[in-house]
Amino acid sequence: MKALRVEEKGVVVREIEKPAPDDEAVVRVLLSGICNTDLEIARGYAGFNGTIGHEFVGVVEESAERSAIGRRVVGEINAGCGECALCRAGDPRHCPDRTVLGIVGRDGAHAEFLLLPLTNLLPVPDKIPDEHAVFVEPLAAAYDIGDRFHFAPSQRVAVIGDGKLGLLCSQVLALTGARVLSIGKHPEKQRIVERRGIEVTSPKNAAKMGRQFDFVVEASGSPTGFDLALSLLRPRGVLILKSTFHGQKEIDTARIVVDEISIVGSRCGRFAPAIDLLRKGAVDVDSLISEEYPLSDGVHAMERAAAKGVLKVLLRP
Amino acid sequence: MKALRVEEKGVVVREIEKPAPDDEAVVRVLLSGICNTDLEIARGYAGFNGTIGHEFVGVVEESAERSAIGRRVVGEINAGCGECALCRAGDPRHCPDRTVLGIVGRDGAHAEFLLLPLTNLLPVPDKIPDEHAVFVEPLAAAYDIGDRFHFAPSQRVAVIGDGKLGLLCSQVLALTGARVLSIGKHPEKQRIVERRGIEVTSPKNAAKMGRQFDFVVEASGSPTGFDLALSLLRPRGVLILKSTFHGQKEIDTARIVVDEISIVGSRCGRFAPAIDLLRKGAVDVDSLISEEYPLSDGVHAMERAAAKGVLKVLLRP
Repeated sequence: MKALRVEEKGVVVREIEKPAPDDEAVVRVLLSGICNTDLEIARGYAGFNGTIGHEFVGVVEESAERSAIGRRVVGEINAGCGECALCRAGDPRHCPDRTVLGIVGRDGAHAEFLLLPLTNLLPVPDKIPDEHAVFVEPLAAAYDIGDRFHFAPSQRVAVIGDGKLGLLCSQVLALTGARVLSIGKHPEKQRIVERRGIEVTSPKNAAKMGRQFDFVVEASGSPTGFDLALSLLRPRGVLILKSTFHGQKEIDTARIVVDEISIVGSRCGRFAPAIDLLRKGAVDVDSLISEEYPLSDGVHAMERAAAKGVLKVLLRP
Repeated sequence: MKALRVEEKGVVVREIEKPAPDDEAVVRVLLSGICNTDLEIARGYAGFNGTIGHEFVGVVEESAERSAIGRRVVGEINAGCGECALCRAGDPRHCPDRTVLGIVGRDGAHAEFLLLPLTNLLPVPDKIPDEHAVFVEPLAAAYDIGDRFHFAPSQRVAVIGDGKLGLLCSQVLALTGARVLSIGKHPEKQRIVERRGIEVTSPKNAAKMGRQFDFVVEASGSPTGFDLALSLLRPRGVLILKSTFHGQKEIDTARIVVDEISIVGSRCGRFAPAIDLLRKGAVDVDSLISEEYPLSDGVHAMERAAAKGVLKVLLRP
């Protein structure tokens, strides 16, 4: 089968063996989405070599549980050991021995087929087209913020970054009733959330706003975004880190202590509420799709995904 | 009156005018304590010039409210504008226009007399001697952690630093029933908390313990303490920053996002619960007193407070 792989010498599309089922399910991939993490992995982040990709929708082709075969599914990307306290509590996202689809110790979704434990797979309601279902994983990541914090209507929330994740975060947070400001450099991207009643501004204008925000979500992946976030937080405000930067970031700890700021990392979220949002049409994902390519053009698709102004790039095996 | 001051050319004891009451109360200082923040201010932190000191016990000497005169008091160090939403809600600790005793825009407690709004002053029960009452401010700062987080008995808490603040934090957190480990370099200091049933270890041994702590309090004020704290936190653990470092600290943001770590700054706390702890004798502060000097020896006292192995140094006007 074809697979888009990161290897020592770079990103390639290669013919590899179709995965054998063992005790996991074989999923035939219908559509997969290129995430910034894929681009980071291609640059050496996480030290992963193998098939990349972790956003997908597919159909169960082989499984020990016969009734699952033929089911259209999305898949939680963290596969736990099943034995530790976290896994037994039903949340393998922090299992220390986990593998992560296309990121840690497990081949990913930019391929004709992938393997995942059946327990990781969630059925997709018929009403949700493939082009929306492929957004369940990043939408779940955005929704995780709402899972962890309560947003009151009186509270001010800023989202820094108008990339794919930033635009999803802005939309999801606006659904809580909080007053959301999207901060980004690309008016044409910001129009996607502006159409949904979300205020937008540029980083330059935001820098003049001062310490008035209760929550700031950093989803730009840039160190200057982090500094802007700190400058916007009121005392006792919360900075939610959705993006990582390569390498270390210098931080003024005195500001954190004196103003009693919280900095909270947020990575993956639960899939069920994300599926629910898509079923209800509560989030605009259509506008986030920039381009689609056949999997065989995966290397070109990766280049396009890294290009300025491009949002989500999809791959079809 | 005599006052210990930070001036352009360094730390000096100087005769200055006794403060006039205006609409605030004049407090005759009985005893004041040297905090690491005083040492930092002497090194240029916060850009403060004037009388330093913010830990004290005293007697109200002049006040518009006659009934307050003669009362033995301690004092909240943040004096708010009284008008903003925070002040009106009764918590001026983050008022943007606040002055802070001996730290921001207001002469401090290492003096014969000080000024504070009457609303900042809390009476000290007779049962608490001056030598204990002078610890109310740092004890409140330690107690703030318990105000902001719930500690379950099953949770593991580490406190990095066996200085004055670290030893207070260890003691206060142990009162919650959580299992506390004090991490420090000075066995003779750690014996103070060991006597109260708290486990102790060295940073070297702690570095081998791995990611098992739910909460780590960084109270060492050293960048290596921060790195140790991160290395001890389980996924979704909380790092509570009590100490600041001079300058910037390089932080691995990927660790924060991937393991969904929270970093929370904590500065000042409420005085009432700290007074209550001292009244109950629930915290050993006697063992934290290293030396006492007359205010006129303030410059020498500051040198002693900065010396290795010395804990709290008190000044008596």
